Amino acid sequence: MRKDNYSLNILTGKKYLIPSEGDKENIDNFLSNHKGKQVIVVQGLGFVGAVMTLICSNALNEEYAVIGVDLANSNNYWKIASINEGVFPVVASDPKINEFYQKTQSKGNLLATFDSYAYSVADVIIVDINLDVLKNSDFSKTLTNYDVNLKPFKKGIETIGNNCKDDVLILVETTVPPGTCEKVAYPLIKECLLNRNLAIDKFKLGHSYERVMPGPNYIDSIQNFYRVYSGIDENSALSVEKFLRTIISTEKFPLTQLANTNATEMAKVLENSYRAMNIAFMVEWSRFAELADVNLYEVVSAIRMRPTHSNMMLPGIGVGGYCLTKDPLLASWAKQNLFNSELPLKQSETCVQINDQMPLFAFNYLKETFKENLSGKKALLLGVSYRSDISDTRYTPVEPFYDYLSSEGAEIYLHDPYVDVWEEKEIEVSSDLDQLFKEDIDILVFCTNHSEYINNEWLIQSISNKKNNFIFDTVGVLNKNEINILKESHTVKVVGRGDI
Amino acid sequence: MRKDNYSLNILTGKKYLIPSEGDKENIDNFLSNHKGKQVIVVQGLGFVGAVMTLICSNALNEEYAVIGVDLANSNNYWKIASINEGVFPVVASDPKINEFYQKTQSKGNLLATFDSYAYSVADVIIVDINLDVLKNSDFSKTLTNYDVNLKPFKKGIETIGNNCKDDVLILVETTVPPGTCEKVAYPLIKECLLNRNLAIDKFKLGHSYERVMPGPNYIDSIQNFYRVYSGIDENSALSVEKFLRTIISTEKFPLTQLANTNATEMAKVLENSYRAMNIAFMVEWSRFAELADVNLYEVVSAIRMRPTHSNMMLPGIGVGGYCLTKDPLLASWAKQNLFNSELPLKQSETCVQINDQMPLFAFNYLKETFKENLSGKKALLLGVSYRSDISDTRYTPVEPFYDYLSSEGAEIYLHDPYVDVWEEKEIEVSSDLDQLFKEDIDILVFCTNHSEYINNEWLIQSISNKKNNFIFDTVGVLNKNEINILKESHTVKVVGRGDI
Repeated sequence: MRKDNYSLNILTGKKYLIPSEGDKENIDNFLSNHKGKQVIVVQGLGFVGAVMTLICSNALNEEYAVIGVDLANSNNYWKIASINEGVFPVVASDPKINEFYQKTQSKGNLLATFDSYAYSVADVIIVDINLDVLKNSDFSKTLTNYDVNLKPFKKGIETIGNNCKDDVLILVETTVPPGTCEKVAYPLIKECLLNRNLAIDKFKLGHSYERVMPGPNYIDSIQNFYRVYSGIDENSALSVEKFLRTIISTEKFPLTQLANTNATEMAKVLENSYRAMNIAFMVEWSRFAELADVNLYEVVSAIRMRPTHSNMMLPGIGVGGYCLTKDPLLASWAKQNLFNSELPLKQSETCVQINDQMPLFAFNYLKETFKENLSGKKALLLGVSYRSDISDTRYTPVEPFYDYLSSEGAEIYLHDPYVDVWEEKEIEVSSDLDQLFKEDIDILVFCTNHSEYINNEWLIQSISNKKNNFIFDTVGVLNKNEINILKESHTVKVVGRGDI
Repeated sequence: MRKDNYSLNILTGKKYLIPSEGDKENIDNFLSNHKGKQVIVVQGLGFVGAVMTLICSNALNEEYAVIGVDLANSNNYWKIASINEGVFPVVASDPKINEFYQKTQSKGNLLATFDSYAYSVADVIIVDINLDVLKNSDFSKTLTNYDVNLKPFKKGIETIGNNCKDDVLILVETTVPPGTCEKVAYPLIKECLLNRNLAIDKFKLGHSYERVMPGPNYIDSIQNFYRVYSGIDENSALSVEKFLRTIISTEKFPLTQLANTNATEMAKVLENSYRAMNIAFMVEWSRFAELADVNLYEVVSAIRMRPTHSNMMLPGIGVGGYCLTKDPLLASWAKQNLFNSELPLKQSETCVQINDQMPLFAFNYLKETFKENLSGKKALLLGVSYRSDISDTRYTPVEPFYDYLSSEGAEIYLHDPYVDVWEEKEIEVSSDLDQLFKEDIDILVFCTNHSEYINNEWLIQSISNKKNNFIFDTVGVLNKNEINILKESHTVKVVGRGDI
């Protein structure tokens, strides 16, 4: 069958034909079993939306009927089918995900669908679709241009506006350029309602961003964490607050209302820009430390004892994930395009550019210190996900590092305890170190600081048993003692460390 | 008498003739009263050195004879005379300063002098002299060049080398460009000792920076706080550690040894660069917030609830003080000049430049929003020190702000509860708000967030009683409620706030 005719379940390998007809009957059946309950529709079943369906179907003090909606295309349809078949489409180390999903299944209050008809029955619609930045291929070298792709987001809002009830609450959770709710979503919804001859003063529009952390605290990072929210008007803000109180532990984590949607939208991208900028800041200092024979890890640990400096970042291989790699650009784009400023947020743009260059720096450092030709060398990368102890490989810095290494002709082996298939590259990843160590590895690179690699005596012993390997720690996995052991029979290099 | 013949005590107004003869007799007399005690010499009696003499003369578990040394010139001689006469040359809100000084006086174990003879009797010499950056006059507009003035520091080290015992411990506390101890001080001391036909393998050289905070916790910021230290060799490091244990509460605040002097020197400038960079980062966001009608104070408060983001900075009038305005430049200079790198620490240079521009941004914001001609307007600036609740006006951002306002012909009144005389500008500062409010003020600017201004009902009432003033809060003194009260009869503007 043609690729765009089916959708592959990346968890089970099962292929689904993409349906060509509507899903109204299923939705109506589902609703007939949940009469009297408020209907929550979650738009987008990605890393946030999928988990939001669980949070809502297990609301703290309310029984909702929850419908998750995504598109019927090859990238997304499998998530819909998978939810309805009993396989949750997100893999995470958080045991609560499974626990919540099982409760949801036994209650039967979650349906997934692709049919926009769902929006017409919703009391609350939560927008969890992506909003992406398109970077030029040369972005990491010359910060010339990038663009914000608003189209899919607008399309999503339009679909809501063309189907929703006139008094619906629309809660945007997507990270958007500041100004988007007020200047893009609000007029668009009004336009749609006007075209349908419906009242335009009854719907509620709000913004409240999640701070989701895929990993061991996935559920808690939504349900048990601080939330900031706002409404396009006071009535909207009240509705958002009322809804959030049903799904978030607001007694322990009080809600914070901000004055307008610009403010909450800005808060989200500012948070992530702050983090991205603090990482970028350490990049130059890593180079300086290497030059001055200084162990930057040691220096930063000493500085972090000051409470005012506890958030200083450590050197590393780069920045990955969906947020830090683009949010500062969303902000700068908004300033120029939604608020007509001639000046970009230069620091925020620059920090993304610097962070995007980190894998190249790490690779160059490897190349310079390895000295030999990389062609034909066997390299084992330990870790491919962008952060420790998660399976998320989106925008992982290991990808460009892999590409550089590969383009020099190295033969690359991959290990990650959390990743079976590296989706973006369509490569299998091993979780069997024993097996991998049977190869005659020349170069061993720590790319992610997974707990499994840290203070792992067996691992150090296994590497020690080999001879004359080149060991490159890009993320501070190895401690002083381990480095000393490994140095006896290997060459050891660490990003941001000059004293070995 | 000629200005370079005397030195003015800025605390008492007393003038001292600068001595033309040596001080050996006094030193010998002092020592004869303290036989058997180790002699500590502190080089430099500024904000750090003066207080270090108190810390050492009141060491925790040792009795030292302490000699403070500074230069016999018009800027510095008065400090020497003042210490010996019973007036401590540093004013601070910390009651411990006075308490320590009184204990020192009753013990009689502190002498101040200008005679280099002091170095010849020292067992430990603590270097607390300044090391300055010379910025071009147009530095804040175009980051073209700046220079590090190593001369006075080298001269200080040379004086030590030409006088010290061959087994002295020299402890550098000055914030220096990373590499200075190893590449500048160490060879210089050896050269001096060689010229004197002394052994060059017996002296100890170390680096340990203070994290002094002039203000209510002045003493504690040295004695009860974490310390990082290093030595030029292992023996030096041991000597430094042993000495620090006698003056710092190391049980509560453990010492951290770093591998070499480059590392501790780098740690200090990295700490301050981190802070300067995080402040600079907020500058662009302040402009964006104003444009998008967003209250950045509210946004930052909401974000700070996340422990990972608790150190986010607030918008303000600018960055002052002796450290943040130059330390990032020391680092970048060192990278290029002591480690032969072709690349500066660009982000660190840029953040100093941005911070230096903040007073201009604040002034421009005032000018744009005030709209009327500033010439002849009466402006009252509340606060001139660079930080809340201190009297330190060194590099205060209020200075350029004052200059811009003054150059437009405004008539300026100054208030500060901690500053009687603004030393750098040689202007008297009032602490009598009642008196100042009798003037017909047109513009009232909060420039420092002194505690006295915060939640001060009387102050808000007094301002309210006036009519049609232009009130400009550059440092977030006013809360929402106060702004609403003041808005009834005044125009109110706040840096980083768009919603008023």
